[in-house]
Order: sequence, then structure tokens, then C-alpha cells
Amino acid sequence: MPQDKATRRPRAETPKGFRDYFGAEVTERKAMLDKVAEVYHRYGFDPLETSAVETVEALGKFLPDVDRPNEGVFAWQDEDQDWLALRYDLTAPLARVAAQFRNDLPSPYRRYAMGPVWRNEKPGPGRFRQFYQCDADTVGAPSVAADAEICAMLSDALETVGIPRGDYIVRVNNRKVLNGVMEVAGVLDPTNPERFASRARHRPPRHRQDSTALAKPASAPLLGEGRKDESGDFTKGAGLVAEQAETVMAFMAARRDTGAATTARLRELVGTSAMGSEGVQELETIAELLDRQGYGPDRILIDPGVVRGLGYYTGPVYEAELTFEILDEKGRKRQFGSVSGGGRYDDLVKRFTGQSVPATGVSIGVDRLLAALRAKGRIGTDTQGPVVVTVMDRDRMADYLSMVADLRNAGIRAEVYLGNPKNFGNQLKYADKRASPVAVIQGGNEAETGTVILKDLILGAQIAQNATLEEWKDRPAQVEIPRAELVAAVRKMLGK
Amino acid sequence: MPQDKATRRPRAETPKGFRDYFGAEVTERKAMLDKVAEVYHRYGFDPLETSAVETVEALGKFLPDVDRPNEGVFAWQDEDQDWLALRYDLTAPLARVAAQFRNDLPSPYRRYAMGPVWRNEKPGPGRFRQFYQCDADTVGAPSVAADAEICAMLSDALETVGIPRGDYIVRVNNRKVLNGVMEVAGVLDPTNPERFASRARHRPPRHRQDSTALAKPASAPLLGEGRKDESGDFTKGAGLVAEQAETVMAFMAARRDTGAATTARLRELVGTSAMGSEGVQELETIAELLDRQGYGPDRILIDPGVVRGLGYYTGPVYEAELTFEILDEKGRKRQFGSVSGGGRYDDLVKRFTGQSVPATGVSIGVDRLLAALRAKGRIGTDTQGPVVVTVMDRDRMADYLSMVADLRNAGIRAEVYLGNPKNFGNQLKYADKRASPVAVIQGGNEAETGTVILKDLILGAQIAQNATLEEWKDRPAQVEIPRAELVAAVRKMLGK
Repeated sequence: MPQDKATRRPRAETPKGFRDYFGAEVTERKAMLDKVAEVYHRYGFDPLETSAVETVEALGKFLPDVDRPNEGVFAWQDEDQDWLALRYDLTAPLARVAAQFRNDLPSPYRRYAMGPVWRNEKPGPGRFRQFYQCDADTVGAPSVAADAEICAMLSDALETVGIPRGDYIVRVNNRKVLNGVMEVAGVLDPTNPERFASRARHRPPRHRQDSTALAKPASAPLLGEGRKDESGDFTKGAGLVAEQAETVMAFMAARRDTGAATTARLRELVGTSAMGSEGVQELETIAELLDRQGYGPDRILIDPGVVRGLGYYTGPVYEAELTFEILDEKGRKRQFGSVSGGGRYDDLVKRFTGQSVPATGVSIGVDRLLAALRAKGRIGTDTQGPVVVTVMDRDRMADYLSMVADLRNAGIRAEVYLGNPKNFGNQLKYADKRASPVAVIQGGNEAETGTVILKDLILGAQIAQNATLEEWKDRPAQVEIPRAELVAAVRKMLGK
Repeated sequence: MPQDKATRRPRAETPKGFRDYFGAEVTERKAMLDKVAEVYHRYGFDPLETSAVETVEALGKFLPDVDRPNEGVFAWQDEDQDWLALRYDLTAPLARVAAQFRNDLPSPYRRYAMGPVWRNEKPGPGRFRQFYQCDADTVGAPSVAADAEICAMLSDALETVGIPRGDYIVRVNNRKVLNGVMEVAGVLDPTNPERFASRARHRPPRHRQDSTALAKPASAPLLGEGRKDESGDFTKGAGLVAEQAETVMAFMAARRDTGAATTARLRELVGTSAMGSEGVQELETIAELLDRQGYGPDRILIDPGVVRGLGYYTGPVYEAELTFEILDEKGRKRQFGSVSGGGRYDDLVKRFTGQSVPATGVSIGVDRLLAALRAKGRIGTDTQGPVVVTVMDRDRMADYLSMVADLRNAGIRAEVYLGNPKNFGNQLKYADKRASPVAVIQGGNEAETGTVILKDLILGAQIAQNATLEEWKDRPAQVEIPRAELVAAVRKMLGK
């Protein structure tokens, strides 16, 4: 029977490009972010949670087309006809906050932020219109000690969430060195070093969360007009012409076996360029500061091969890459790749106040790092559900609830089956779907004798698969115990 | 000099009705929600994080004016001209999820959700357009055992976050009892018990987070057309006419000294009404189940005086009220009031699937509960900042950073001053602004002799205020110690 139009039911669907996160997807991300926040906190960073909604004016001229303010972001007009939009990253709101509260905030202002951002872009496989970012920035710190600190903190954060040393490398480059190299090569006007920087400045710094690994052979397009990745997402390039790009490729190949050898090679390349020398000096300082704190080249490395963000940042640039191999969707081995990037950008607040404020910061690609931890088997192993107390006799619900209360009071996750109890098979199916480790059963006979039956559902599943008779004898999948021993017996069955 | 219009600087402001949360405001809320989540988890509830954006179609006909889809919510059209909106609560997305994934989710589906929601309403003092909700719902559980469980969980959650027993009460009422009372009074058609329920059903269930205490004398308007609270926010009433409202007032006064006496009085009031009897029976069952789990009337109470949400819910209704007194803005004592509410609503998924699915759930007013914990001095006492290592000689930055690294590796929150180090006074001002407990100082003399100076900034501040000379002698506000003993000495000064 066709439905009447007037009573047509709404579709139960998320909007295109959005998704929901269930159970372990939520807790695993939260656990990871909690660990990262702990590191940031120890480094003296304070949390900041800005509103999801900003004025389009405050978000800035990131938009490709000012006549269509909802291009790239989700935007609408408020009651006063002003344009509002969902934040597209956590940096633009930081800029607004740093300007708005500049008289109240400590300077330097060290803040971290974690939360969703929204992009009105074409969705693709694994690419959603709402995703998490996790940033830390120091605003008002001119010294490269601030950049060195962020690199050390990034290294600590990766190890703390479960990426072992040796499985990642933080690589550091410097935009000023590139400028120096190009000045020497005659493709940059030293009196206007910002010339081509400004061409890319106002694009959304998606690279700060971009999850696509930057494979070296594919880098050239990023120096030119830009590049489309496999997902169809366009990464705008630094906007260099062919001649400039060649110079840059030589610079990118300057990495040597040691940090000292690399900076020596860079010194050669920048020749007499004042800005280039300054950049090399900064890299040397960063390397020395990190070395003195125990962050050697096994963790943080000077590497001119880092080009992501060079068009956006103004000084040191850094990127964290995971070096272990995974299988791609076609079964080929490849390096996991980039999970985080950042750098120095000195005009954060200038748009608002006219004053230049030095800032440096990093963004971790949250989904990307979660995927890495899953690939390494660091998360996703413990998804145990609650103990389920089944209902054999609905008139004794109070008995079942008091069992659950006893278990909960002992800190054991537990619940009573609250669906229609008529079909007992459904209750066991439910326990199975919840990945419940133990089912508690008390029928009329057990109630009379003051006992309960515990069913070890994990062991039961194992026995069903492959256990031998010996194991079955050792550890019965089902026991009858006195009601008074419920908590102790469940605890034993859980191996706690 | 007037600014050129073309280069007018953007205003650094949040949109009207939005705000930012800094430092402890973020961590205190997070700590509270973490504790609540732990309780919900122990009760067998799983987290769900839906997207912030929903289709207006999925959010439903909550809108006062369908021709202006951005009334009440923040909405915009996507590239296909479909209307999208920011979620206004966590219940509407749950309804969508429960329908969309009905074949995959366990049934009953027990989920909790925590996160921001958005309302396009007139902002007021303390009333923002983005605020947190914290919900737990059981979908697909017809038994009032599910309602009893939510009440017990709410009680546990309040005690776990720091509201002592005796300082709160969870009150339980039942819509069916009210219906029965009205049926007996001849103001409700028993063949159409939903008649006036439907008049209020589709309004946004703001009451689930509504932070305004429901003072008893002010309740009558809530039964009629509605009421404006002090902030100017309008709470729509149940839509009863005067005669009905009188009947309801009698019902509301039915609370007696014990739960048994209350339900006995309710039995009298509902007389022969089948629905009324069913409602009283449900209340009796809830009271019995809770009692058996140890939740007596000192924590959870049958109270017909609960009217919030009666127009929206279809069965049991519950509300958590904080009973201690605070001073209002005019210095008058008043009870803190409601921090949470919920109830049973059985048509959650019906809009999407045509099938009725029983559901019950609760929402905690996050900002309201945080305010209560602050009023009780349970949070906001520990806002200690990091140890600050000052910079006396910028050429020895590596030394200062290695001090910071030693402290951090010992788990002590620490940072080096990263602003311009020229003015040492600024560094101490910075440490003060960060609420730093200890400043570490190493000038040229100390560096030569291998020592550092520790300044106890907390003690320093106390001495400056009121300490006696004796105390000063006992615990010096400044000590010089060997560099090698930095961690131990700082730890001692922190009292760790």
C-alpha cells in the first residue's frame, strides 16, 4: 500500500558525509585524547574550548569565493543577517580568542584544544564532513625553543598513546631555509620574501590534519599548483613555477646521515642569504635544544624533505610520520605515513589587531592516529560488555535487580535484561550481542535453594570453537553457586 | 587616523549567545562528565556520539513554524537544497539512530551521550546558544524496571560527582496517574488519553535540561499555557484549561509522609480509572524495586508534585533536585533546585518506522550541576599552574629546557618561560598569572656553582598576606639547592 504523502515518514539517516560513533569507537578515541591531554598538561598547556560557531568575519578570508560564504564551510545567516559558520579547524578560533582576550591571557599563551571541526567538502571513503582535531599552540613565543618544545611534546604524546620509539619519526624543516635557497638561486626577491608565501596564506590549513601520507615522489605537485589525492581532495600547493620547484627539489634532497651533516649541507645551499642563514641557525638551535633534553635523531630529525605546510608556515615546520608498514587496500605494503604536522606562523592575530604575534603549534590527525593504534593492535582488544542477569520469572524482578546492584557496588559492570523476558533464547542472544562475559541465571528451582547459575560466555564461545575436553573439565563453562557468593564467583569467572 | 574601509579589521568576538571555556572550566566539566560516564558504564550503558548536524527532516516537526525552518534551531540548506540543522538535544538524534540501526543494535539499546547541543533562542544571562547535555536512555524496555534503574543510576551519578546523600532527592511521578485523576474528574476522555498530551508533544524537550528550579508555588502556569522564567525563557505548559489545572493541583498535593501513604492517597484519587490504577501500580513497583536495591526514600521518593515534563512523557517521570540552600543574586536563601529530569516516552522511533518502541531516559543539566558542585566547594579549589623555569640568560636555554625535561619526566607539570626574557619582572608576573606554585631561577652565579634557586610562590603570596615570622623561618619561601636535586626539592616544595 503506497503511503499517503501527507503522512510520509522521515528518513532515518545522517546527512551525507556525516556518521555516528558507537561504543568502543567513542571510548577508544576518548582514551587516546585523554592520554594526549595528559602530556599537553604536563608541558604546561591549558585547555581551551571555543564555541563550534564563529562569525564568518572572524574565520577570515579563507573562502575561495566571498560571494558564496557557504563554500567550504557550513554557514548561515543569523537574525541580524550576519553570517555564522561552523569552525573548519581549531586554529582560526585560537586566533580570534588570542585577539579577543589579549589583555587577559598570559603571554605566552599555551593552549591545547580537542574537538570536532566541520568542512563543507565532497565526502569520500573515510573522509567525513565532521572530524576531530587535537591541537597545541604557543602564542607569543618568538624563540625557536617553543618550536623545539612542541616537537618534544609531539614525540612524548605519540609514545604515550602507544606508538613505540622507532615506529615514528618527527621531522623538522624551516621555511626560511627554503627562502634562502631560492634567494640564492635567484627565484626569490629578498626584499619581498613573503611574495609567494602570501599566495597560499589564506587557504584553510587543512594540512594540519591532513591524513594523507606525503610520499616523496609525489611531492613536486605540492610545490606547484597543488595535488588531488586518491580521495579526490585537493591539497593546494605552494604555487611555485617550474624553475623554483627544481631548486626546491635540490633543497629537499639535502638530508644527510646526521643532523650536523644536513645543516652543513644546508649552509652550503643558502650561501650568503641572510634569511637562509637564519633558518639554518634556527634548525641547529632546535637540534641542540632537543639533544640536550634527550630527544636524539632516533626521535626528532632535521629533514629538508618535509614540504607539507611550507606555503603556510613562516619558520620551523614539523611533521610526525609513522614508519612501520601496513597493507593498503590493494594488499601492498606501504609506510603508514603522516599523523601530525605543524609549524610557526607569525601573523595569527594580526588580522584582528594589526600587531604581529609569533605563534607555533601542532595538530594531530585524530582518526589517523587511531587507525595506526588499531593497526598496531594497541586498541580494540578489550570490548567486553556487561554481566547480564537474565530474567526467568518476571515477578522476581526485584531479586534480579538486587543481584545487579550487588555486582555494580563491587565495581563490576552489570545489568538486568530489560526486554520482554518471555523468550529466554532472546536473552542469551542479547548477552551475545553485548559481548557479555557472564550470564547470571536464577529460575524457580535455584530461587528455592538460594543459588544462582553462572554461564561463562567467553569460555563457552571458546569451547564451541576449539577447546579440548581437558580444558572443559578444568574450568566449567557453567557453575551453580550460592546467591550469597555471587560477587566473588563472578569476579573469579572474570579473572579479576 | 581612520581606517580604510577596504582594510577594516574583523571583530574578534564570538557570535551573540556563544562563549569560550578556558582552563579549569574545561577540565572541571570533563572530570565531572568522566565520573558520570563511569557510573553509566557500570550500569551497562554504551556511549553514542552522533554527528552535530542532522537533517531537519530527521529532527522532526518540533519547529513552531514549518515555513521558517531556522526558527529554534540553527539551520541551512545543503548543496541539494535539503535543510540541515545543528541538533537541539540528544534525544532526537537517538530516535534517528534507534530507527536507522534498529536491525543491528541490541534490544534493549542502552546508550549514554554527552556533548554540546545548539538552540537558536534569545540568549540571556547564563543562557547560551551552545551548552552541554548528558543523557542516558534505554530504548526497547517496556518494564518500569528500566525507569527504576535510571532513577538509581541518577542517584549514584549525583553521589559520585560529589553531591552527598541528603543534599539531593530524586522524585518520581507518573503521567498515567495524572491521566487517571483527570479521567475521574471528568476532564479527560478515557478513549483518547493522548488528547492533551499531543498538544505539547512536539515542542523541543528543553525541560530535559532546563536549569530553572521548579518552585512549587509557580507550578500552576506550567500546567496551563506556560510560563516565562526570570531569564525571559518561555517554558511551554501542558496546555490545560483552568478546571483541569485545579484537579491537577489536588493531585500534586497528594504527597504524604511515606511512599506507601502517598500511593494509597493516589489510589483514592484515581478511583476506578484503569489507566490511573496502572500508573499507581507502576509507582508502587518502582518504589519496591528501588527499595530492594537499597534506594530508600532518603534518595528516591514518590512525589506527585513533579510536573515538569508531564506534557511530554507518557509514563513515569523523574526529577533530581538539590535540596541545599544557596544565596540567589539578591542575597536571599533559596533551594538550589532541579539539576536533572527524565521519564518514559514511548513513541521515540514511531515517527520513522511506524512501530511504537518504549523508551525511558534522563538528562543531566551539565552547567547546572557544575554550578552546584562549585557552590558546595567540591571543585574549583585546585587550579594550580605549572612550575615555571625562568630564563636569566637566553644563551643557556638548553640548560633551562633540560631542567623542565627533568621535572616533566618526574611527572611534574613544568614549562620554561618562552616570552621575551629581557624583563625578569615580566617572567614573575607570568608565573603569577599562571598560578604557578614554584619558580626556578638560575643566573650566572648559580650556573657557575651548579645550583638553582627555587621560589615558593604560594608561600610567598601567603607571607605577603598574613604569615608570622615563625612560619617564614620554618619554611623559607626561597631556597638555593644543587641542580642535581632539582626534582626532589621541587617535589618537596609542592608537598608531594
